[in-house]
Amino acid sequence: MSKTPRGTDRQQAARDHLWMHMARHSGLHSGGTVPIISRGSGHRIYDDQGKEYIDGLSGLFVVNAGHGRAELAEAAAKQAEKLAFMPLWSYAHEPAIDLAERLAHYAPGDLNRVFFTTGGGEAVESAFKLAKQHFKMKGFPGKTKVISRALAYHGTPQGALAITSLPDMKTPFEPLVPGTFRVPNTNFYRAPEMFADNEKDFGLWAAERIREAIEFEGADTVAAVFLEPVQNSGGCFPPPPGYFDRVREICDEYDVLLVSDETICAFGRIGSMFACNDFGYVPDIITSAKALTSGYVPLGVMVVSDKLFEPFTKGDTTFYHGYTFGGHPVAAAVAMANLDIFEREGLNDNVKNNADNFKATLDKLKDLDIVGDVRGAGYFYGIELVKDKNTKETFNDDESERLLRQYLSPALWEAGLYCRADDRGDPVIQLAPPLTIAQPEFDQIESILRSVLKEAANKI
Amino acid sequence: MSKTPRGTDRQQAARDHLWMHMARHSGLHSGGTVPIISRGSGHRIYDDQGKEYIDGLSGLFVVNAGHGRAELAEAAAKQAEKLAFMPLWSYAHEPAIDLAERLAHYAPGDLNRVFFTTGGGEAVESAFKLAKQHFKMKGFPGKTKVISRALAYHGTPQGALAITSLPDMKTPFEPLVPGTFRVPNTNFYRAPEMFADNEKDFGLWAAERIREAIEFEGADTVAAVFLEPVQNSGGCFPPPPGYFDRVREICDEYDVLLVSDETICAFGRIGSMFACNDFGYVPDIITSAKALTSGYVPLGVMVVSDKLFEPFTKGDTTFYHGYTFGGHPVAAAVAMANLDIFEREGLNDNVKNNADNFKATLDKLKDLDIVGDVRGAGYFYGIELVKDKNTKETFNDDESERLLRQYLSPALWEAGLYCRADDRGDPVIQLAPPLTIAQPEFDQIESILRSVLKEAANKI
Repeated sequence: MSKTPRGTDRQQAARDHLWMHMARHSGLHSGGTVPIISRGSGHRIYDDQGKEYIDGLSGLFVVNAGHGRAELAEAAAKQAEKLAFMPLWSYAHEPAIDLAERLAHYAPGDLNRVFFTTGGGEAVESAFKLAKQHFKMKGFPGKTKVISRALAYHGTPQGALAITSLPDMKTPFEPLVPGTFRVPNTNFYRAPEMFADNEKDFGLWAAERIREAIEFEGADTVAAVFLEPVQNSGGCFPPPPGYFDRVREICDEYDVLLVSDETICAFGRIGSMFACNDFGYVPDIITSAKALTSGYVPLGVMVVSDKLFEPFTKGDTTFYHGYTFGGHPVAAAVAMANLDIFEREGLNDNVKNNADNFKATLDKLKDLDIVGDVRGAGYFYGIELVKDKNTKETFNDDESERLLRQYLSPALWEAGLYCRADDRGDPVIQLAPPLTIAQPEFDQIESILRSVLKEAANKI
Repeated sequence: MSKTPRGTDRQQAARDHLWMHMARHSGLHSGGTVPIISRGSGHRIYDDQGKEYIDGLSGLFVVNAGHGRAELAEAAAKQAEKLAFMPLWSYAHEPAIDLAERLAHYAPGDLNRVFFTTGGGEAVESAFKLAKQHFKMKGFPGKTKVISRALAYHGTPQGALAITSLPDMKTPFEPLVPGTFRVPNTNFYRAPEMFADNEKDFGLWAAERIREAIEFEGADTVAAVFLEPVQNSGGCFPPPPGYFDRVREICDEYDVLLVSDETICAFGRIGSMFACNDFGYVPDIITSAKALTSGYVPLGVMVVSDKLFEPFTKGDTTFYHGYTFGGHPVAAAVAMANLDIFEREGLNDNVKNNADNFKATLDKLKDLDIVGDVRGAGYFYGIELVKDKNTKETFNDDESERLLRQYLSPALWEAGLYCRADDRGDPVIQLAPPLTIAQPEFDQIESILRSVLKEAANKI
């Protein structure tokens, strides 16, 4: 294609030049249009035609404090004009120091050391690399393998992607970093029948599968287990009671690092600054990103225990890792202002106080034949769609394609709700709205979902 | 360590909580202090004591338009308040579309498709992954290997790190993505003696080493060659005349993708928006980041040929890759404003018009015994330090440690010049100032370097 003149209409420019992420382009290239989002305010977003939508996904589990915060825009501008950029490569700046101190105080146990990145995948890469170096320094150079859970998503760089458990996302890019292994997730709705309604036993069984994987591989070859507090991909799997207690014991027994990947779950999504605190476990490393700035500027973070950092305080021992933009001063300043909002407006308390009502409102949808399960925690829910509610039979690939891509995604959008209809596991609708909303918005969301889902069975 | 109260002094907070990048921490932990940078203005930065420094490195090859630009701060604030965040996952927003169109117009040939990331390492990851998928779709699933050059740095995620050729940065994190191989770089100062003063023959020899590596591995196993236009790590190696022409021929002959990693070299560093245009070659993929926003907000990019994108316009073929923060609306809006400054103030012309004078000014340092070579292009130079100018003998590890870390880095800082004394290859001082400077600043830089380097020989 030759260079078209600039300033043609935006749909044409997108068609000619933009490569969207994780997205099919054939529709756009056969004459379709891409939704262009122009503006956001609170829990609402607006497209380029001025149409309003409820942001039921906080962008992408990101805009936890809501859109259009003048205070965060001002914090960005103030820092950008004062010092827009300096790397953290042997130098430092005030916003990164202040934010590191603040995050260490939110973190449990001896997690006091803060390494900044540019996003969640990069935080996972950092933790993976640190785990490998940690055991090499300890005299176990072969302790490099990582265990993660079925359907889990941990990011797209080739280390994080190796940990990710979605074969369709990995196959085109093999070979990836070698030595990663999967165990079952905590999908209680799809748990083996023997557990019936015994969620606790299911959780202990799922935890033992981690022990089993460590033993299969050999403890001297396994460096870390990566787990989300509530697993997103697959459709919002909270941890069964006792699960993380047992995982912590297993990790201690085999000297395997427990990494809590809180890219989605931190910063109020479940109700606390760090979600390991919601579930009462202390990991060795927390990884996060997204809502740390409510997404106003890119930032990710890895919070590490003193135990892991200690060797790096001596001699020339160095963690040869970093990102030019990691801990960016504008991002760090915006994160500070964002966390000020969290504290001043009590966003975490809002989640804690309203989560049960949000869940109860969504639970009403269970009267629809297509709704098999509603699960989650805090302001983070997955609604699993089924073909047969009694047998829990799910849809085949063709049905899922018609249901999710041809009907649900456009129908929800048309009805004014931005959320995600996802079939990386069984088909689910994912909800993770800004933490500012309450009962009136829960009702609106339920009402839109009800009207669209009522039609869904006819569209498969 | 228990949680210390927040709001202690910043040196203590940094000591207790901040993990700096690529940095030794032992000095800080044995009572030292970390330089805290508080403010920037034009080509100057200021520490928390108010002391002024020339920013001889543009932060980290980043702040090409200079610090303290109110216009960029305003662009960030305006976009953040309007729409601070939406992902590019099947949705789009105006700033990303406009920037994609603009970058496609700067790029050569049919490089018209723009995929955004959060930084340079992520752009390299993206190109590595795309190269693998490209050949799998073409029926060559084993065409996955990558060739890069000795001492080259391409980033820290475990794919980009596998391509990086700095063993000390890789060993702690093995195993990485398998199947990457090295060829010589274009360090003419250290070229084999047979080339004497024949830079062109040296360049052709270096290009042929790429052909040789492809043949050693088998063309059906090699996906891509990653090259910087001017290689940074090792100390600023420009391409010899004819080098890229021959590399392009070799890549075409063996159906291997040529990736121009312009994380550092794009956006005026050499004098053009994309540095492949400075050297007259058309790669299959350009990767960049850093100065795209002059670093005011994190952003990276991969620009891809129509040929590579074409299969993705059909059916359900998808590049299952993306970053939550890739193509962030605030970052894209700031990039647009930054490129407006480039065009309005003629920053690229400033580089083209003054590069020879900058080089000539630095060349004066060659009268010092310790200065073995001054090399580079545009506003991007490396000054190689030697023990014996006549034999080109370099320093051993202990001497290099004393020279660079114990003397030069603090002495240059003390003298008011922020730049980088680096010994990832032979010891060099790296210079890459903002593109706004001219002869008065060249003279200042030369004068500081002269005074510090004059003392250096006594400090080894």
